[in-house]
Amino acid sequence: MEAFQISGNSDKATDFLESIKSKNFLFSFVISYTETCEIPEITVAGAEKDLIQYTPPADAEYLHYGYCKTIERIPMTPDGKPTPGLLTKVALESSSIPHITINAGSKIAPQLPFIETGLPSGKNIYVEKSLTDSDVSHAVDYGRIVGRNLASLTDCLVIGECIPGGTTTSLAVLRALGYDARVSSSIPTNPVKLKNKVVSSALTRINSDHPYSIVAEIGDPMIPFVAGMLNSASDVTKVLLAGGTQMAAVLAFAEKIGFQDENAAIGTTSYVANDDSANFDELVKEISDIPAISVDPELDKSKFSGLKAFSEGFAKEGVGAGGCIISSMMKSGLDKTKYLENAEKEYDRLFTLP
Amino acid sequence: MEAFQISGNSDKATDFLESIKSKNFLFSFVISYTETCEIPEITVAGAEKDLIQYTPPADAEYLHYGYCKTIERIPMTPDGKPTPGLLTKVALESSSIPHITINAGSKIAPQLPFIETGLPSGKNIYVEKSLTDSDVSHAVDYGRIVGRNLASLTDCLVIGECIPGGTTTSLAVLRALGYDARVSSSIPTNPVKLKNKVVSSALTRINSDHPYSIVAEIGDPMIPFVAGMLNSASDVTKVLLAGGTQMAAVLAFAEKIGFQDENAAIGTTSYVANDDSANFDELVKEISDIPAISVDPELDKSKFSGLKAFSEGFAKEGVGAGGCIISSMMKSGLDKTKYLENAEKEYDRLFTLP
Repeated sequence: MEAFQISGNSDKATDFLESIKSKNFLFSFVISYTETCEIPEITVAGAEKDLIQYTPPADAEYLHYGYCKTIERIPMTPDGKPTPGLLTKVALESSSIPHITINAGSKIAPQLPFIETGLPSGKNIYVEKSLTDSDVSHAVDYGRIVGRNLASLTDCLVIGECIPGGTTTSLAVLRALGYDARVSSSIPTNPVKLKNKVVSSALTRINSDHPYSIVAEIGDPMIPFVAGMLNSASDVTKVLLAGGTQMAAVLAFAEKIGFQDENAAIGTTSYVANDDSANFDELVKEISDIPAISVDPELDKSKFSGLKAFSEGFAKEGVGAGGCIISSMMKSGLDKTKYLENAEKEYDRLFTLP
Repeated sequence: MEAFQISGNSDKATDFLESIKSKNFLFSFVISYTETCEIPEITVAGAEKDLIQYTPPADAEYLHYGYCKTIERIPMTPDGKPTPGLLTKVALESSSIPHITINAGSKIAPQLPFIETGLPSGKNIYVEKSLTDSDVSHAVDYGRIVGRNLASLTDCLVIGECIPGGTTTSLAVLRALGYDARVSSSIPTNPVKLKNKVVSSALTRINSDHPYSIVAEIGDPMIPFVAGMLNSASDVTKVLLAGGTQMAAVLAFAEKIGFQDENAAIGTTSYVANDDSANFDELVKEISDIPAISVDPELDKSKFSGLKAFSEGFAKEGVGAGGCIISSMMKSGLDKTKYLENAEKEYDRLFTLP
C-alpha cells in the first residue's frame, strides 16, 4: 500500500485496501449539470462557454468509444490540455474494469446506453434555488435503487462524476453543513474570490438546517444522487468515492442520511490531496471517519506537456480519475511506470487522431 | 436436471446447466413497443386497449417496487389474471437474483432508474414499415454495448422482454427468415387467423433478404436489440434467452449476426414448450444448435385460480418468467414446492393490496 498516501483512520484504510485487493471493480460514472457553471470564469471544464454543457456526455462517450459523438473533439482546456477522463480511461483499460454511465441531471444525454434517472439539471445557485425539495428526494431514492443494484454486481463500486461548476455547489453545501471548506478547482489559479462570492450570496438564502433543504437551495443533483448510491451500496459491498471536493460534499450529505462507514473510502489524486489552496485531507477527517486514499500518478515524469499539466494543477481530478487509478492498481497490481506508459500511448493516439 | 425438460442438443444442455449451477445471475428486462399491438384483439397484454402501452413500464415497476407507479394496478387480463411478471418476481426474489430494466423502444418510460437506449417504438407492421434501417443498426450496436457491459458483471446473463404484440412481429420475422413458425400467444384461444392475416400482409412488402431490412420492415426494436446483446455477451459469459416465440425470433436474427452458441440457451415454461398451437421446440432446433430448456412450475397445483390459469394457457410466458424460474432453481436449488408456496404468498399479497 506504500503506493498510496493515506489520511484519516489508517487502520480502516489498510482494511479497506486489503479487502479489495485482486477483486472485481465496477466504475459508475455519474454525469450531471448545474447552471452555476454558466457564471463566466468559474470553470474550465469545456473549452468555450457554449460547449460546457457537452462536457459530461462527451466525457462519457470518450470513456466508452475512445472518441466523442456529441462534440467533435474530446473535452480540453482552451490551450489543448485533455480531460482527466484520459487518466480514467487508461486506468480502467489497464485492468479491464467495466464501467457504466449514469445520467443524473446532465443537460445533454450521451450517445451511448446509460442509466436514466429522470433528474433535472440544477439551477444557478448565485441567482436562484437549485432544485425543488422533491427533486432532492427523487435523487436520493433513485440513487439508492441504482446503488443497491450495482452493488450486487461487484466487490467494489467506484463512483466518479462530471458536473461542470460542481466545486462551487459543493463548497456551498459543505459550508452550509458547517464545514470550513476551501475548495479545489480545475484551474491552477483557482478563482477563489469568485467562488466565495457566489457561495456567500447563495448561503444568505438558507433558512433551514435540514440537509435536504440545504441541497435543494444551493446544491446540485449529483450530490444527493451519489449520497443515495453510497447509502444503499455500502450495505452490501465496498464503495470508493472517486473525487475531490465534490465527493467531500457527497460525504457530508451522506453523513446525514447514513451509510456503512466501514465499507466506504474516498480516493483521489495527490494533486487534489496536496493542493495548498484547498484542505482536502483535513476536510474529510472533519466530516467522517473514513479513510482518504490518494495516489500520485507521477505524470510530472511524462514527456508530454499535456500530461505533465495535470501534476501542475490543471484539472487535478475529475471523471473519478484518482479513484480509478487506485482501483486499477489494486485489481491487477498495475505499477506507476506501466500506468504512465499506457497514459502516454493513449495521449499519443488522441493527438494523432485525424 | 430432471427438473427440466430439454430439447435440442442434450449434451450442450447438460454442459450449460452444469456451468451455471450455484453461480451468479443477472436478469435484464428489456421493455419495448410495437404499434402492431394496437390492432384490435391481437393481444391481451393489458386490460384495455388504451392501457396496453403502460404494460411494459408497469411490469418493470412491479418487478422492482412490488406495485406500479405508471398505472394504479399491476397488469392483468380483463378478468383479473395477473401478469406473468408475478412468476418472474417470485423467481428472482426466491434466490436474490438482481435485475435491471432496459428501455428499448417502450412508448412510456418506467418510473424507476433504467438503461436508456434512445430507440423508437416500432410501427404497426400491418400498415407500414416498422423501423428505419438505421434504427436497426442502432439497436444492434447499443444491444452489443449493453450486452458486453452486463456480461462482465455476471456468470449468467438472463434476458427477458415485454413487448405487447411482439408474438406477431416475431412470427413475421421468423417466416421472412425462412422458418415454418407457428406462434404461441398470451390468449388461450390464440387469435391465429388474425395474426396470420397481419403477417401475410406484412410479408408482401419484403423486397430484400437482408436480415437488417427484414427486421426494419416487419420486426420490432426488441429483436435486433436483444440479438445484439446475445452477440457480445456470449463472448464472455453464459446467456439465457428467457422467453418463447419472441426469443426464437431473436435467435433467428442472431444466427445472422453471430454469437457463441456454446454459451447460449433458450429457457421458457413448459406451457410454451408444450403448446400444441405453436411448435416451439422444433422451431428452436431448426434455427440453431442451442439447447431449449423448459420448466413446469406446476401452477396447476395451486389453490388460486389466477395462478392455475397460467397452466391453462393464459399468458403462458412473458417477462422472462420461465428462464427466471430455471435460473432461480439453478442458483439456489429452489424446488418447485417452495416456488409454488412463494408464488401463492405473492399472489395473496397482491390481491389483498388496498
